[in-house]
Amino acid sequence: MIPSDAHANPEPSGKPVRLLDAIRAPGDVKNLAPAQLPQLAEELRDEIIAVTSRNGGHVGPNLGVVELTIALHRVFDTPADQFVFDVSHQSYAHKLLTGRGGAFFEKLRQTGGASGFMNRTESPHDAFGAGHAGTALSAALGIAVARDLRATNEHVVAVCGDASFTCGITMEALNNVVTSTRRLIVILNDNEWSIAKNVGAISHYLNRLSTNRTYNKIHADLEKFFTGLPGGHDMHRTWMKWKRETKDFFVESSLFEKFGLRYIGPVNGHSLDDLVKNLEFAKNCDTPILLHVLTKKGLGLPAAIVSPEKFHGASPYDPLTGESRHTAPGFAPPAPAWQEFFGRALLRHAKADPRVVGITGAMPSGTGLAHLAAALPRQFFDVGIAEEHAVLFAAGLATRDIRPVVAIYSTFLQRGFDQVIHDVCLQNLPVTFCLDRAGLSPNDGPTHHGLFDIAFLRSVPNAVVMQPKDEDELADMLHTALAHRGPAFIRYPRGPAVGVAVKPEPVALPTGQAEVLRQGSNIIIWALGPMVYEALALAERLEAGQQLSVGVVNARFVKPLDRELLLSQAAVVPLLVTMEDHVLAGGFGSAVLEALQDAECPAAVERIGWPDQFIEHGNDVETLRAAHGLTPDEIHQRILARWRNLHPIGVEAGA
Amino acid sequence: MIPSDAHANPEPSGKPVRLLDAIRAPGDVKNLAPAQLPQLAEELRDEIIAVTSRNGGHVGPNLGVVELTIALHRVFDTPADQFVFDVSHQSYAHKLLTGRGGAFFEKLRQTGGASGFMNRTESPHDAFGAGHAGTALSAALGIAVARDLRATNEHVVAVCGDASFTCGITMEALNNVVTSTRRLIVILNDNEWSIAKNVGAISHYLNRLSTNRTYNKIHADLEKFFTGLPGGHDMHRTWMKWKRETKDFFVESSLFEKFGLRYIGPVNGHSLDDLVKNLEFAKNCDTPILLHVLTKKGLGLPAAIVSPEKFHGASPYDPLTGESRHTAPGFAPPAPAWQEFFGRALLRHAKADPRVVGITGAMPSGTGLAHLAAALPRQFFDVGIAEEHAVLFAAGLATRDIRPVVAIYSTFLQRGFDQVIHDVCLQNLPVTFCLDRAGLSPNDGPTHHGLFDIAFLRSVPNAVVMQPKDEDELADMLHTALAHRGPAFIRYPRGPAVGVAVKPEPVALPTGQAEVLRQGSNIIIWALGPMVYEALALAERLEAGQQLSVGVVNARFVKPLDRELLLSQAAVVPLLVTMEDHVLAGGFGSAVLEALQDAECPAAVERIGWPDQFIEHGNDVETLRAAHGLTPDEIHQRILARWRNLHPIGVEAGA
Repeated sequence: MIPSDAHANPEPSGKPVRLLDAIRAPGDVKNLAPAQLPQLAEELRDEIIAVTSRNGGHVGPNLGVVELTIALHRVFDTPADQFVFDVSHQSYAHKLLTGRGGAFFEKLRQTGGASGFMNRTESPHDAFGAGHAGTALSAALGIAVARDLRATNEHVVAVCGDASFTCGITMEALNNVVTSTRRLIVILNDNEWSIAKNVGAISHYLNRLSTNRTYNKIHADLEKFFTGLPGGHDMHRTWMKWKRETKDFFVESSLFEKFGLRYIGPVNGHSLDDLVKNLEFAKNCDTPILLHVLTKKGLGLPAAIVSPEKFHGASPYDPLTGESRHTAPGFAPPAPAWQEFFGRALLRHAKADPRVVGITGAMPSGTGLAHLAAALPRQFFDVGIAEEHAVLFAAGLATRDIRPVVAIYSTFLQRGFDQVIHDVCLQNLPVTFCLDRAGLSPNDGPTHHGLFDIAFLRSVPNAVVMQPKDEDELADMLHTALAHRGPAFIRYPRGPAVGVAVKPEPVALPTGQAEVLRQGSNIIIWALGPMVYEALALAERLEAGQQLSVGVVNARFVKPLDRELLLSQAAVVPLLVTMEDHVLAGGFGSAVLEALQDAECPAAVERIGWPDQFIEHGNDVETLRAAHGLTPDEIHQRILARWRNLHPIGVEAGA
Repeated sequence: MIPSDAHANPEPSGKPVRLLDAIRAPGDVKNLAPAQLPQLAEELRDEIIAVTSRNGGHVGPNLGVVELTIALHRVFDTPADQFVFDVSHQSYAHKLLTGRGGAFFEKLRQTGGASGFMNRTESPHDAFGAGHAGTALSAALGIAVARDLRATNEHVVAVCGDASFTCGITMEALNNVVTSTRRLIVILNDNEWSIAKNVGAISHYLNRLSTNRTYNKIHADLEKFFTGLPGGHDMHRTWMKWKRETKDFFVESSLFEKFGLRYIGPVNGHSLDDLVKNLEFAKNCDTPILLHVLTKKGLGLPAAIVSPEKFHGASPYDPLTGESRHTAPGFAPPAPAWQEFFGRALLRHAKADPRVVGITGAMPSGTGLAHLAAALPRQFFDVGIAEEHAVLFAAGLATRDIRPVVAIYSTFLQRGFDQVIHDVCLQNLPVTFCLDRAGLSPNDGPTHHGLFDIAFLRSVPNAVVMQPKDEDELADMLHTALAHRGPAFIRYPRGPAVGVAVKPEPVALPTGQAEVLRQGSNIIIWALGPMVYEALALAERLEAGQQLSVGVVNARFVKPLDRELLLSQAAVVPLLVTMEDHVLAGGFGSAVLEALQDAECPAAVERIGWPDQFIEHGNDVETLRAAHGLTPDEIHQRILARWRNLHPIGVEAGA
């Protein structure tokens, strides 16, 4: 929840008094004169730019919906009325108008500050949380039907970006609207973008719809046209007959009308008058409405207009130049990211073998596939926000001797889980999955953390699941996966890679074989991914401080696990430790426990990983690890405590 | 693969020689004279009815596509050309025409016989396997793009039921067709049904499209109409101007044309001439085509026409009367099914509390929700084959004090996994999930077994996961779940329940508390679900034969696990056994291992469950358990062997 003093201490400054500072609740927006609204819009934009330029965030989407958000709060009454924002990364203005400004908003996406998304625990004005795309229409339909069942009278408004309509859930919901309720307002916030430039037929269709000024008047015009013909009356009769025969063919011509929604638009999404007028109309309809609103992503920040993809979700930037803070003087440039190494490694494979293709669901830059897209566009596929299709499409390709690589965030693969089981793994098809952002996405928070993939993947037969310790091994694993005659999953985290040198040529790793990095006779740490480097530091510390002999294994493969090595060590070493950037329930450590028990080996295993709770957003990985007892110091203490419990008389070191 | 003697021993009978018996490959279909095709169609129907009436199977869908399948094999050449059937439960005629008749087909859905679905390991004529709905268009698009990349020339045909278009994946794929390939043939097999009567706006739309004879000629007719007006030339000019202004608005008026596909239809799906003619046309187009074919589900079996839902997927039946075999004289009626008890229990709750609603994805009968649908239609929602929407819609309802129960097969919840995490569990919303067909669906096989749900659900924070030992406890668990202020998942198997008496009123079970059914000092079996009864029998046998003291615990909750009980037992009992109808990797037994290790308790645990491989289809659960070492005898032996390994000197019984 918001700290109660969120507004208590406005900074004493020489700035002119802002309208925004007086707005504590949506009622205050309604009390403004219409002439004051443009100023409010400007102040909202300034605040969004001021905070996102420091903290990073979804700049473009939020700048695009400032007027729309003001208009929504002029016409409707939250929290009684229910707003559901798709993805909800465009909810900053909504937060600022619903009592979440000031210090709370200044800590946007930081520990203790506002979440970057709608969040039911943050405010009663947030009817439904999100973070993934395509959920708004479906959730809003549930909320509307609940209203109908309870016979109350609140309004339900879903705000969906145009890209949401590339997502299957939105279409599933659309198919159910008219048979479920008579009252639902869907706002199509059309900025012609998802995260990258929008793709597919719907995008093309919406574009034509938006630019076709005559569209919305066809019916009326046709009628006028026929009535004005020579012999007008007869002509009109013929026309009416036509209309009957074609069963209202003409009035149902928009895509949305085929789904039974009444289509209104396109409306200028930056005209407060137009928005308020159309929302008032929609509010009073007793038929589901689709209001098509045209907005400009990034409006008010010139750099965001020029580079909409960069400013979709931006790291801190200079508000004047748009330059990223970490490339500006005084900021140390971060090490190149995992996705950068992946993107380059994939491009090398694709150049060498035309069967290698890359697939993304609207994340060409985020995943590093942009390299492939630029160099070999024929071998690159952006399917839109359509994770289920991405996986299935890859399965289809793989049946015909193509080697698809699906580059997808760990959290979004949850969307393609059935296709992973039913289409890829059951048919043992050679699809490679590169699971980006496995581990934490600290600023985004629980909707974006990738903490479940091992648990849901390792139960699936035929799946090979691995995680590289560094960027050099990532290249080796991609090589290994592409050579493997079945499904392979490679997980790696968000952000800067380890910083090691990458070999000129990758090598194939023996499937299911771990790497012993350090021998030990008291404790052996089985670490997964970059945790390996932490494990090495821990081992040194334990040896130096406690005279323990501590080994380290780079597990490499969660599945198949290197049972042979594991069992040979467990037979002689009293304590094993597992380390993973994943929940403990069903994770890598759990696979180790299974292997040991199946071999009837009673080894002691201390499992290090994330607890059984959703992890909040926060400043960075370190802050969140500290909040959950996972600092290197705490891990060190846990291992020591376990060792002492096994050897209560005293720490006995050596063989 | 098919045994090579599948056709070797035709039964010596007095039956006239059939065309079908001479067909070993699709080439033989092409060699028939057109006049022979109706006879072939009749023989195919007879064979499908003969076999399904004995073995059960998807009667209705297969009888509907007999002519379509013949026409496909007349026009195209598999295995070079690629057919992808959606769900692929309509592939029986295809199997019979591609060398899989005779004894192999007679064992349809039985051990060693033909799968009820397309299966890449069964025949090269099966381009892509399926079992879940909505995958064909997406997979076919992958196959078509692979062809384009490889610059080969095969045809790719996706056969999709109308219900596939209620499924998000199909729409995601549809959005990607025109931007991905110029050559793809999509057959919309429109029988106005999914499994139950089709729902939603698309179904309504297709119905109007099918019955609107003028639809397909509007463009041409309008042109003729204008030219024929008084002052014809001027009128025609006006019309042409109109056309330009509206940007080909008219020719793009079908839903599919908005997605860029060329729409042809509707075509009579039982006219071989019409089908062949239109398929020939489609074959020669260089634009993606949607061919709308109208078929009659169950054609040729009067009972299936009368009761299409029953004969969608039928148990054995009398081909003359349509009566189910197990209700016919000489067949023992099975015990009422789990879903029957669930359906009745839910109805009781819904009657008592109007906030309780039931949601299904096109499975009202299969899940037992038909009781609710009939008695309280306002509290029942069939959303179509739209599992993602089903879960999200429930989440929306749950935010507004409605208590939704999502009744869904375990295997289909894989489709809603992201919504389970991101929408329901993250927001801790009180949605109850009733996971039907957890465990094996023996005749359907690997696409339908529900063997992964524990693994993917127990890693999700806030999830409560349980399984009742019998139908009485199922009612208690439903009661418990509806009273719980968060997400709850109840899993139970397909088929007849245990046969115990059900209390008049259910009771709430203490969350996370297991039930001790039998004390023991040597071994304690923690069993989940109906395995509890097997465990009790095993315990008796072990006590009687080996003088071991064997306890049994009904685990009830996988999550939260009853750690307290588990640890208290593990402290004094040398061997624990877990039994679950689920894969071992990440399953219930794995949760037990985690709990023990976290408490630093070195207990021995023998885990009984399914191995890490996809389980084939087969006669029944017993056959498949025998094939994987899971008969009661084998489990008995495994437990004994583990006990003896722990006590190598001899079996020591008693405290």
